[in-house]
Amino acid sequence: MSTSTPFKVIGTRPIRHDGVDKVTGRAVYGADVYLPGMVHGRLLRSPVAHARIKSIDTSAAEALPGVEAVATSADLPDPGDRIAELGEGAINVRHLSSNCLARGKVLYKGQPVAAVAAVSPHVAEEALKLIKVEYETLPVVIDVRAAMQDGAPLLHDDLRTESLGKPGDKPSNIAKHFQFQKGEIEQGFKEAAVTVEREFHTATVHQGYIEPHNATAQWNADGTVTLWCSTQGSFSVRAQVGELLGIPISRIRVVPQEIGGGFGGKIRVYLEPVAVVLARKAGRPVKVVMSRADVFEGTGPTPGSYIKVKMAADASGRLTAAQAYMAYEAGAFPGSPVNMGAMCVFACYDIPHVLVDGYDVVVNKPATSAYRAPGATNAAFATETVIDEICEKLKIDPLDFRLKNGAKEGTRRADGPVFPRIGMIETVEVAQKHPHYKQVLQTNGQHKRGRGVASGFWFNCGLKSSATASVNADGSVSLVEGSTDIGGSRTSIAMQLAEALGIRAEDVRPIVADTDSVPYCDVTGGSRVTFATGWAAYEAAQDIKRQMVQRAATIWGVPADQVVYEDGTIRSTSDPAKKLTFAELAAKLHATGGTIVGRASVDPTGVGGGLATHIVDVEVDTDTGKVTILRYTAVQDVGKAIHPSYVEGQIQGGAVQGIGWALNEEYIYNDKGEMTNASFLDYRMPTCLDLPMIEPVLVEVANPGHPYGVRGVGEVPIVPPPAAIANAIYRAIGVRMQTLPMSPGRIVKALHNGNGKS
Amino acid sequence: MSTSTPFKVIGTRPIRHDGVDKVTGRAVYGADVYLPGMVHGRLLRSPVAHARIKSIDTSAAEALPGVEAVATSADLPDPGDRIAELGEGAINVRHLSSNCLARGKVLYKGQPVAAVAAVSPHVAEEALKLIKVEYETLPVVIDVRAAMQDGAPLLHDDLRTESLGKPGDKPSNIAKHFQFQKGEIEQGFKEAAVTVEREFHTATVHQGYIEPHNATAQWNADGTVTLWCSTQGSFSVRAQVGELLGIPISRIRVVPQEIGGGFGGKIRVYLEPVAVVLARKAGRPVKVVMSRADVFEGTGPTPGSYIKVKMAADASGRLTAAQAYMAYEAGAFPGSPVNMGAMCVFACYDIPHVLVDGYDVVVNKPATSAYRAPGATNAAFATETVIDEICEKLKIDPLDFRLKNGAKEGTRRADGPVFPRIGMIETVEVAQKHPHYKQVLQTNGQHKRGRGVASGFWFNCGLKSSATASVNADGSVSLVEGSTDIGGSRTSIAMQLAEALGIRAEDVRPIVADTDSVPYCDVTGGSRVTFATGWAAYEAAQDIKRQMVQRAATIWGVPADQVVYEDGTIRSTSDPAKKLTFAELAAKLHATGGTIVGRASVDPTGVGGGLATHIVDVEVDTDTGKVTILRYTAVQDVGKAIHPSYVEGQIQGGAVQGIGWALNEEYIYNDKGEMTNASFLDYRMPTCLDLPMIEPVLVEVANPGHPYGVRGVGEVPIVPPPAAIANAIYRAIGVRMQTLPMSPGRIVKALHNGNGKS
Repeated sequence: MSTSTPFKVIGTRPIRHDGVDKVTGRAVYGADVYLPGMVHGRLLRSPVAHARIKSIDTSAAEALPGVEAVATSADLPDPGDRIAELGEGAINVRHLSSNCLARGKVLYKGQPVAAVAAVSPHVAEEALKLIKVEYETLPVVIDVRAAMQDGAPLLHDDLRTESLGKPGDKPSNIAKHFQFQKGEIEQGFKEAAVTVEREFHTATVHQGYIEPHNATAQWNADGTVTLWCSTQGSFSVRAQVGELLGIPISRIRVVPQEIGGGFGGKIRVYLEPVAVVLARKAGRPVKVVMSRADVFEGTGPTPGSYIKVKMAADASGRLTAAQAYMAYEAGAFPGSPVNMGAMCVFACYDIPHVLVDGYDVVVNKPATSAYRAPGATNAAFATETVIDEICEKLKIDPLDFRLKNGAKEGTRRADGPVFPRIGMIETVEVAQKHPHYKQVLQTNGQHKRGRGVASGFWFNCGLKSSATASVNADGSVSLVEGSTDIGGSRTSIAMQLAEALGIRAEDVRPIVADTDSVPYCDVTGGSRVTFATGWAAYEAAQDIKRQMVQRAATIWGVPADQVVYEDGTIRSTSDPAKKLTFAELAAKLHATGGTIVGRASVDPTGVGGGLATHIVDVEVDTDTGKVTILRYTAVQDVGKAIHPSYVEGQIQGGAVQGIGWALNEEYIYNDKGEMTNASFLDYRMPTCLDLPMIEPVLVEVANPGHPYGVRGVGEVPIVPPPAAIANAIYRAIGVRMQTLPMSPGRIVKALHNGNGKS
Repeated sequence: MSTSTPFKVIGTRPIRHDGVDKVTGRAVYGADVYLPGMVHGRLLRSPVAHARIKSIDTSAAEALPGVEAVATSADLPDPGDRIAELGEGAINVRHLSSNCLARGKVLYKGQPVAAVAAVSPHVAEEALKLIKVEYETLPVVIDVRAAMQDGAPLLHDDLRTESLGKPGDKPSNIAKHFQFQKGEIEQGFKEAAVTVEREFHTATVHQGYIEPHNATAQWNADGTVTLWCSTQGSFSVRAQVGELLGIPISRIRVVPQEIGGGFGGKIRVYLEPVAVVLARKAGRPVKVVMSRADVFEGTGPTPGSYIKVKMAADASGRLTAAQAYMAYEAGAFPGSPVNMGAMCVFACYDIPHVLVDGYDVVVNKPATSAYRAPGATNAAFATETVIDEICEKLKIDPLDFRLKNGAKEGTRRADGPVFPRIGMIETVEVAQKHPHYKQVLQTNGQHKRGRGVASGFWFNCGLKSSATASVNADGSVSLVEGSTDIGGSRTSIAMQLAEALGIRAEDVRPIVADTDSVPYCDVTGGSRVTFATGWAAYEAAQDIKRQMVQRAATIWGVPADQVVYEDGTIRSTSDPAKKLTFAELAAKLHATGGTIVGRASVDPTGVGGGLATHIVDVEVDTDTGKVTILRYTAVQDVGKAIHPSYVEGQIQGGAVQGIGWALNEEYIYNDKGEMTNASFLDYRMPTCLDLPMIEPVLVEVANPGHPYGVRGVGEVPIVPPPAAIANAIYRAIGVRMQTLPMSPGRIVKALHNGNGKS
């Protein structure tokens, strides 16, 4: 449904500026950083999931030849009890510190306890073995509902449940209980003709970025430190390291390297402060790189969860009420995305009566982190499965049901906000008319087939971005911005600058600069970069345009108000002969007062929510339980696709991660709280051999809150897949799966039991 | 004569921002660049000073194992016949190309003929030996006056003398003859009571920067190239390489490394285009670093010259006329700084009748390059010696003479311009009152002693500079600029930003960025950086201040015209309670709309000329001819010393280079045109063991053309020393030296001959 536009650059598909570097292996990642005199850091991680640390003896490690430094939490300043704004929301500094180097207790297997820097990684690993840690092991709790029970092993002596805004009085693993309410929930259920209530469980899954975390730190003798790392936000790393180590931010320079995926998992620091501490002690640069097992066991996956959803509709198919009980595993420290899950759980629909209870619960797993639309996928799995069952009972086509009940401009969410213009209805309309939905799905003997649909919502966000851009004499523009480029954002930002200036995308040369060289920029996350940093580039272009108009006026000797900048051309309104293209004026700048540089810093409101509706056909092998995705169509309101290829790529990538979450991915724990599958061999992510081509369908409901109508597009595509696949499996085998992943074992069990509860 | 000022930062002496990096060896220079897969380039240089190249056979070199690429001028695009503006004045592209890799002829010993890239420097050197070049040697001319004779060996078949603006008709080594005229020269000599005419010779001398030239180039598969090098101007390198190789400038990224001295000699490219060509052919990054002999023989020294000066004064000591005949060696290609020498030759004085003839002459020496006040030192040696002789004849104190005749605001130079406010008279007044000048110089037996004075002028220049600066939440400011920092300019620029914002110099973090990351900036040269890039920083600060006023107005809900920024504080004029320091408002920016970034691009007029008067005491050992500098005082109008220590350092450094030029430095040639002393052992630069502490005296006659009164300070201190020392030697031994250097041999000969002509 891409409509014709007045744009010349936006909507085209130029080659990404960093493309050649990436495909030729020239791009420099954090692990590629080598500095003179550099030594190698390794971390000692807890072998147990819950224990008090009685003592740490590092003397033997320190004595090993080749060891340059050993660090424990004693080398970090006491963080006290404080909450700090560290670039991406409030963070408990004590928890963040303990997550980098454990203080007093270990709360999950894999938590760092000590670190060594040595002349080689091998010596560092030898030294780790010489560190003697005396643990007093404690009972372990790794399931959210078990952790909520009275008598469960307690992770934090000082954690009290904050319930509905009130502080609690007794120790608990429940960090927080909150509620969102709209209307009168009981009234809603009374008005219903059909009510469905189901329970859902989802496993812990990891973002699975290809590139492991890494950090290289180098101190200068003047008390400044430079940090090379793989991060979604260099300024956020600067803020966190500064806060954890008590270093003023202007004494820390973070040089972001190319990043091999993040998906939310590379916002919090892990290795960075440890590398800084080791480098200070060693008096040499220190590089630390995680192994894959470190990444699984020691970084932040997305939470496992327990969700109970009860929804009701009247006989006409109008939703009357929806209730959810949502308990999310925060991992070792409070802070699961249950609040966002609770905002999203019913956000696709216009429902008069809603009640949502959310619980943030600590368990003996790694502290969870953001993962692509954090919290929303778990929630949608529950809601969209229940809706499918309601549709079945009412014998309504599930897309017709969504047309009738879908959220639209003016719909108020249970958590308060009223939607501006959004494209939920449009995604459903496009899905209905799509050949995929019209084509009848053929069965195939014992391989049962079914089709499912599901929708999803994600807020997207704005946050702060900046850009500077300077005009070169050859008519090109050098663009400097601070958003680490994960999915082609150099190009989607450069294209907005080019569009605004009326030049080609290829004539913009974007650079992602370090924290000393670019104005402040928030993290690459929240599907915000093309929206907000793109907006900063747009504003920098306006700054350039104003100056070029002024310059042309000076050159022509006319008042600036008689000069206009239109369509890449600067012309006098009073004399048609006075006219210069951007490139022509660029060539004259040096001789007429010097070059022109534009700058902008933005913190935009006007974020446009993202909505998507997915259609999937599956085939289930009833012997093995293997589910094969036959066809997958992802319809999404993208606002305005700046570079359609990268929007499509985001949708495909998100859908594939959702498919992996749906069918295979999970942290498998034994009863000691040990992850038993911490490798890509055993943690099963889908590869291209497992998947058909995902077909993205771009619906462009322009976001009125952005100059070019941009909405974030990166996150919402992960939301619908588990529910859509569960609904398709139900059509295939008649069992509603209520636990993720819907792995072959669970499918076989479900076929045997007649239900999908475990 | 430093006066009290309203400044808080300017005039103080903070530690330079790059100081610790430099003294701890952490600073990264071009030779420190190592890239994965990098190979090493070496150049084959002409062993003869003048020859036609009949053939070059590189086949044996190409066949040597380990050789990755061989290049000759055939690998460079045919430059045609064109003049291009390449960042620092017009450059003949064909000459520049031939100076990088000779085309058809070699014009000096050391001119590059071919280049090799190989897996190690040693293999590359072996390969050079396998390149067979057939030369048809030609007669050599290395002296400027010999080269001007009819029948002299001609360097260029197509060079015709442009004389007084008219093209010439027959081949010649004289590229250009021009004239500056003021008044009626004959009339001036008629009015005179005393006339002195003398001839002077100066030798070729080198800038002698410690760090040799280097360049590392890496191509990307998308046709872009990155270049790391030691340069005074990264944008100038970009322009020259682009022009020589036919690459659009936006496809070249120049990353300037720290620079170990330049003094004008690191503006023109030498290795850069060769590295780029080798890297393209090799398909690998290529690094080329010069040896010291390469630097002497293959880069641009400052010209040897012949100057005849005739000056006259009336009986009262008023100058009536001055005439100069100036012939400068351009080296292999036209372009000596004789035009600047001719503008400077009488610039210190107000003289009614002047005639200057200038000649730019090619000889079989390396193409000359800029060197600190290019052309002015040769000229001052002549003028200031002649003036000393006039004073002697008239029995006038030489400083009194300068007070009477010195140029001042309103004085018109022979080449046209009228001086704005300058400090010539003030430097003489300060010199007269200085204890050095008042103290009587004691003699010491056979070690004859004498005191000399001399003045000097240099224009200084403005040119284009840019800066961006962004405000950090901790109240610091990150400053990004493009002027490679040779003499502490990061700090002198940062201080102007700090002064303008009312913050500390330490709260500014300056970065010298690459050509993709900073707006256009002309070279570090012409004593322009503190003046012009400082001005850009000042303007960027104004841009920040305007935005901070606007932000405070928004926060306070008052009109912006009721908010003022004064002395680092933003306050409401209507409500005294509304007041924030810079740091306080900086901390609020994130929550109130995002950070603030300032930008500026300037091409300032208002350059303030630099004038200096030096006093020197020498002792001459009449047995050996050795001249010892006993005391040296350099009085200079510095406009406003932003950072007095670096101004003093510039003056000391310039004076020392002038002393080396005066006493010892010279290219010694044999009759084949071969330099016979191309090493620091044989090319004698003064070391600290040769010198007393040079005492700089800062006179601050504020330049009304700059917001902070800045004048360039780096160049003029090299101008007076040779003349001042010659005048001192005359006082010691009674002989007027007319040839530089005044080396021991020449002193002994002068004592023997009774004159200093050779």
